[in-house]
Amino acid sequence: MTPSAPEAPALPTRLLLGPGPSNVHPSVLQAMAQPLVGHLDPTFLALLDQVQTDLRTLFGTENELTLPLSAPGSAGMEACLVNLLEPGDRALVGVAGVFGTRMADVASRAGADVTRFETEPGTILDPDGMAQAIARVRPKVVSFVHAETSTGVLQPVEEIASAAREAGALVVLDCVTSLAGVPVKLDAWGIDAAYSGTQKCLACPPGLSPVSFSDRALETVRARKRPVQSWFLDVTLLAGYFGGERVYHHTAPVSAVVGLAQGLRLALAEGLEARAARHREAAGALYAGLAPLGFTPLVAEAHRLPPLSTMRLPDTVLGWDGDAGEAGLRRRLLETHQIEVGGGLGPLAGKVWRIGLMGENARKESVERLVGALEQELG
Amino acid sequence: MTPSAPEAPALPTRLLLGPGPSNVHPSVLQAMAQPLVGHLDPTFLALLDQVQTDLRTLFGTENELTLPLSAPGSAGMEACLVNLLEPGDRALVGVAGVFGTRMADVASRAGADVTRFETEPGTILDPDGMAQAIARVRPKVVSFVHAETSTGVLQPVEEIASAAREAGALVVLDCVTSLAGVPVKLDAWGIDAAYSGTQKCLACPPGLSPVSFSDRALETVRARKRPVQSWFLDVTLLAGYFGGERVYHHTAPVSAVVGLAQGLRLALAEGLEARAARHREAAGALYAGLAPLGFTPLVAEAHRLPPLSTMRLPDTVLGWDGDAGEAGLRRRLLETHQIEVGGGLGPLAGKVWRIGLMGENARKESVERLVGALEQELG
Repeated sequence: MTPSAPEAPALPTRLLLGPGPSNVHPSVLQAMAQPLVGHLDPTFLALLDQVQTDLRTLFGTENELTLPLSAPGSAGMEACLVNLLEPGDRALVGVAGVFGTRMADVASRAGADVTRFETEPGTILDPDGMAQAIARVRPKVVSFVHAETSTGVLQPVEEIASAAREAGALVVLDCVTSLAGVPVKLDAWGIDAAYSGTQKCLACPPGLSPVSFSDRALETVRARKRPVQSWFLDVTLLAGYFGGERVYHHTAPVSAVVGLAQGLRLALAEGLEARAARHREAAGALYAGLAPLGFTPLVAEAHRLPPLSTMRLPDTVLGWDGDAGEAGLRRRLLETHQIEVGGGLGPLAGKVWRIGLMGENARKESVERLVGALEQELG
Repeated sequence: MTPSAPEAPALPTRLLLGPGPSNVHPSVLQAMAQPLVGHLDPTFLALLDQVQTDLRTLFGTENELTLPLSAPGSAGMEACLVNLLEPGDRALVGVAGVFGTRMADVASRAGADVTRFETEPGTILDPDGMAQAIARVRPKVVSFVHAETSTGVLQPVEEIASAAREAGALVVLDCVTSLAGVPVKLDAWGIDAAYSGTQKCLACPPGLSPVSFSDRALETVRARKRPVQSWFLDVTLLAGYFGGERVYHHTAPVSAVVGLAQGLRLALAEGLEARAARHREAAGALYAGLAPLGFTPLVAEAHRLPPLSTMRLPDTVLGWDGDAGEAGLRRRLLETHQIEVGGGLGPLAGKVWRIGLMGENARKESVERLVGALEQELG
């Protein structure tokens, strides 16, 4: 070892109540701090097997090809779309926020003929409207976001997916902010490809994207006329390593997978229903705690996403400390109270805050700390 | 926090002398085990600034767009090629092993018209031959591997890059197994895009790919007729987050970047020349230590890559324990001696071992442990 190693500077300890990452359980960090093993080491491969099994449980699927992609959620999005779409294929994308917009961009870059079904930020994709669009467009792929992190809306998956399946389309679902915080049932819903991230309700560091492909999806990829545009994301190659034979594709991010294994262990020990209930209760406490301060939810009650709440800002926040405004108050929360909350994204910038109560942070103690700090700054 | 958290199972402590990952310095693991901060937290952004500055030093470049890509080295390869190549563009790829072959595949998937200049595994790309191929093909991009991890050959970069630049081509260089173990001088050599990995001579966990793009490369990307096929790897978008304005693109893998920051700090505290010398000395000790056991280097002395040595196997290894053979002996080394070495890849499978002395492991103590274990098993 290097004899006189310079020390790494210490980072501050934040309460992460933005749109992710969320705080990580100490046992996940400890697991990751173990000395590395190789990516083909039998002990690592056994752990990877367990990760894949546990991810199937979380996703509610028996899909063999369920794995932690070695890149963040936006690469998971790209993996789902670029494998299923060939140039000229028709795709219908439900656009209800920034991440739906991104899906449409990714699908266009893959050469697909993309139709966007748009809705106002903060509202759901109307299932009847989506069904009509599906009937009109006859797309190969219907793609939308389960839990829009830019608006805090939980989309009605079942009805949309059902209309898509009836029309013979493949269904791609973004589960980045739903997995492990909201029930996800890929098989029951008839989803063909889904992706998530590790840094939200799973409470692991960012960097991996759990993805799952149905057999039907994989057959579609295998029947392509031209190779997938991305070597790194080609699921027929990923299947060689993650599918049992463990053929070298790329060097798996060992430490991150070891951390994810522990995050999954924690989630399953708690139980997915109990975990979802905890997220709902924490969100309820947040609405109750922020109402007296003048914050109002952007989203109608029936469509709120418990792990991520978008709150319209009262004048006390918009005009905080003169010109400092909402961005100044977020900085103050971070620097003085060690609490991170997220600003609005895209058209909602400056108008809402995005407050995440995800994974370890989905507890009323988080709400109490945030409300206390706001009372101090606004009172 | 979850009250009764199940504990993560302990992993064995291995000496990782394969083609990567290599062992990580404890202070890197400790840095990564700190509680997370957000990917837009001022403390994280300051640390990211430092990482980008330090990467420029390691790459020998002043390229503004030098950053840790949030995915492994093979995604770095893809980032370099898919940004610079449009469908129909001509690319000349030097193929001297598995990773050159992969480059050609990635470039083809981007729609490029790919010409492969091939050489026997274990030999260098002949600079005169490459220069003639460049003159004949007139490619937009010339791409090759500095340090072929599948063969252990260090390629003559300067002469090939110079011929490519004279012909007006952009030069892409794979530095996965060279960065921080062998001198890398992108600016002096005239390289336009380069990528590496963190799990080799940098001695960090796998999962990130340091990449660097010259201004000339960035201008080429900005002048494209059609968007980059990959949203995730589009450097014009990456430049928004990594280029100073810190516009949200994707959630950066905070813990991995914090670990990389410490890995870079260690490398620069040691000094790049001293570190390269340490890698050369360790490789020398390996050749000396393995010669009496009948191992012979695959690569001619002038072209050996110190961080990774490919050794032809003596009959004692090929016939070890009857049918067990070289793969059985590698398993024995791992399970009994806690030492990982790599098998041959592609056409060299079963014929050579790939022994990595990278980063923290580039020390004669590693060689002594390996030679001792082999003497015990073969003696």
